[in-house]
Amino acid sequence: MKLHFENLPKTVALQRCGSALYLEYIDQRLLPGKLTIIRTSDWAQVTDAIKHLGIRGAPAIGLAGAAALALWCDTSWQPAAVEDVARIIAKVRPTAVNLSWAVERALKHLHGLGNLALLSKDEVDNALFELVKTMQAEDEAANRAIGGKGATLLKHNSSVLTHCNAGSLATYYYGTALGVVYAAAEQGKIKRVYADETRPVGQGARLTVWELSRVGIPTTLICDNMAASLMAAGKVDAVIVGADRIARNGDTANKIGTYGVAVLAREHGIPFYVAAPSSTLDLTLADGSGIVIEQRSENEVLTAPIEGVDVYNPGFDVTPARYISKIITQDGSFDPCDIEKQYVAHSEELAPLRSV
Amino acid sequence: MKLHFENLPKTVALQRCGSALYLEYIDQRLLPGKLTIIRTSDWAQVTDAIKHLGIRGAPAIGLAGAAALALWCDTSWQPAAVEDVARIIAKVRPTAVNLSWAVERALKHLHGLGNLALLSKDEVDNALFELVKTMQAEDEAANRAIGGKGATLLKHNSSVLTHCNAGSLATYYYGTALGVVYAAAEQGKIKRVYADETRPVGQGARLTVWELSRVGIPTTLICDNMAASLMAAGKVDAVIVGADRIARNGDTANKIGTYGVAVLAREHGIPFYVAAPSSTLDLTLADGSGIVIEQRSENEVLTAPIEGVDVYNPGFDVTPARYISKIITQDGSFDPCDIEKQYVAHSEELAPLRSV
Repeated sequence: MKLHFENLPKTVALQRCGSALYLEYIDQRLLPGKLTIIRTSDWAQVTDAIKHLGIRGAPAIGLAGAAALALWCDTSWQPAAVEDVARIIAKVRPTAVNLSWAVERALKHLHGLGNLALLSKDEVDNALFELVKTMQAEDEAANRAIGGKGATLLKHNSSVLTHCNAGSLATYYYGTALGVVYAAAEQGKIKRVYADETRPVGQGARLTVWELSRVGIPTTLICDNMAASLMAAGKVDAVIVGADRIARNGDTANKIGTYGVAVLAREHGIPFYVAAPSSTLDLTLADGSGIVIEQRSENEVLTAPIEGVDVYNPGFDVTPARYISKIITQDGSFDPCDIEKQYVAHSEELAPLRSV
Repeated sequence: MKLHFENLPKTVALQRCGSALYLEYIDQRLLPGKLTIIRTSDWAQVTDAIKHLGIRGAPAIGLAGAAALALWCDTSWQPAAVEDVARIIAKVRPTAVNLSWAVERALKHLHGLGNLALLSKDEVDNALFELVKTMQAEDEAANRAIGGKGATLLKHNSSVLTHCNAGSLATYYYGTALGVVYAAAEQGKIKRVYADETRPVGQGARLTVWELSRVGIPTTLICDNMAASLMAAGKVDAVIVGADRIARNGDTANKIGTYGVAVLAREHGIPFYVAAPSSTLDLTLADGSGIVIEQRSENEVLTAPIEGVDVYNPGFDVTPARYISKIITQDGSFDPCDIEKQYVAHSEELAPLRSV
C-alpha cells in the first residue's frame, strides 16, 4: 500500500512572523467535513480551543498549552502574572498529565533564564519560541520512535483495533497509537485498522478515520459496542490505544471506553498495547486511583433534555495495568510492572519528551 | 416512587372498526421527540415499519407480523397467495425468531380452520383478529410473569443496567427486561436504571429512557463505552437485557453490544440476566453459531461517506450461554444449560406465548 503522509498537516505548530508569535492549529471540531487551520496570536483562543476540543489529544494539548503561555508572554508579558497564567492554562483540562507537564516545563525554562523581572520581552519570546519548537520536534521524534518500537510487536498482515484518536491529530505529528500503525504500515504489516467511533465526541468516527483515510490505510469504522463481536469473529490481531496519564504501576487513564476494550481484548486473547511518550507517565501516582477523571457535560450525550433522565459522562476511564500487554514509549516496549524500575530511577530526566 | 403506567400506551394493537381491521402502532422512529400513533389497514405499511424500525423489538415485531398478515387477509384475501405473503412478512427481518414464529402461528391457525379455498373472508378475518388479540394478551401476560419471576432475583435498592430497549416498546405492553424492572419497581426494589445509548440506532437513548421517564423510574443515560467504567465504580447491581433468539444451549442473540456487556458483567462479578418470552427460544438450533445476524446499512453509522473508510454494522451479536447468569421466561428463571431440558420435552406446546 502506498502511504500519503504528505496529506497530513501538522496538528499544532507555533510560528514566528517578524517578532510576533502565532499558533497554527487544525480545528478538530470541524473534521472530518472540513480541514481548517486556525492561525491565532491570542492565548485565550488557544485555551478555549483546548477546553472545547478544537485541540485535543494528550501530547497535542501539552504543546498547545506551552504555546499558549508563549503567546501570552508575547502579547501580555508581566513577570508577576506568569505563574498565575501558567496555572490557568494547566487546569483547562485535568486528566491528561501532558498539559500541566508542558506548561511547567515552559515555566521552568523561563526561570532558568534568571530573574524574570530582569528579562526583556524579546528574551522571553525567543526562549519560549525555541523551547516550543524543540518540544514539537521532540514530540515527532518520540512518536516515530514509539512507532518503530511498537511495530516490532505486530505480525505481518495485522488488523488493529484502536479507540479514540491517538493519531497525528493528537500530537504534533505522526501519532502514538497510530504512530505504531503508520510505522508498521511502512513495513507492510498492516492489513486494516478498525476504529471505534468513540462516543460521545466521536474522535474515532471523525478524526481517526479521517487521518487514516488521508494517509491511505484501509479503515473500518465500528460503533463502540461492536468491538466484542469483531473480536469474537477473529478479526482483531491487536488493540493499540494512546494514554492521557500512566501511573507508576502502569494503570492507564485514557478516553472513556478504553477500559472496556481492554477487558474484551484479554477475554479474547488479543494483545492490548498502550502507546505514549514518557511525558504521559505520572510518577507521582502509585496507581490509577489517584487520577482525576474529567466529568463532561450532559449535552454531549443527550441533545434534548428528557425529564427524569440524567447522564453519566466521564471523559476518561482507568485501565488497570493487569489488562495491558505492553506500554510502548519512545524508549521501548515494557511490561506495565516494569515502568517503575525503567523510569523512576531516572525521574529527574524524565520530565521532557526525551528525544531518541 | 410512584409509577405512572397510565403514561405508556400499547405499542402495537390490532383493532376492528365495523368489519375492517387496522393496526395502531407507536412509530418509534419519532421517539423521544414525539409520540405518534399510526393507524393503518395497509399490511405493506406495517412490514415497511418493521423493516425501518418504526416497530422493533422481538415480541412487538412478532405481533406486528401476525397483524400484517391479518390486514392482508382483510384487504386482499386470496387463499392461494397466503403462504407467499406470510413468507414475505416473516423475512422482513432475519434475526428475531418471534417474527417467523408469530406468522407461522397465524398461518397454522388459518389452516386449522379447514380448506382455505372454502373459507369466507369474514371467517378468515374473524379468526385472525381473535388470534392476534389473544397473542397480544398472552404477550402482556408473559411479560408480567417474566417481571414477577425476574424481580425475585433482584435485591432491594438495585441499580440495573440495560442495553437496547427490551421494554414495553419492544412488546405489546410492559416489556421483558424492563418488565423485570417494572415489577421490581412495584416492589420498591429499584433505585435507578442505567440505559446504554445503544448505537447506532439509539434504542436506549431514544426509547428506553423515554419509557422509563414516562413511568417515573430514575434513569441515567450512558454511552455504550461507559458501562465498564460504571461497573468498575460499583454502580451496577445487575444487568438485564432482552433477546431476539435463544438457542437450545442458551446462547442468546440480542442487539449488537449485548455480548460485550455480558463479558464486562462477568469480569465485575455482576449477574447478567436475559429476559424473554419462550417464543424467543429457537429449539431448532443447538447453539448460537446457527443464528443469522442481520447486517445493516453503513449509513446508520457513517452519515457522510469518507473515501477508503467502510463500516461494520451487524445489528446483533451472540452472547455465549456461559456469560448468562439466568434466562428469565414466563415460566421461571433458568440456568442457560437447563433451557433444553425445561423446554425441549414440551416443544410441541412451546410455540405459542403460553399464558401463565
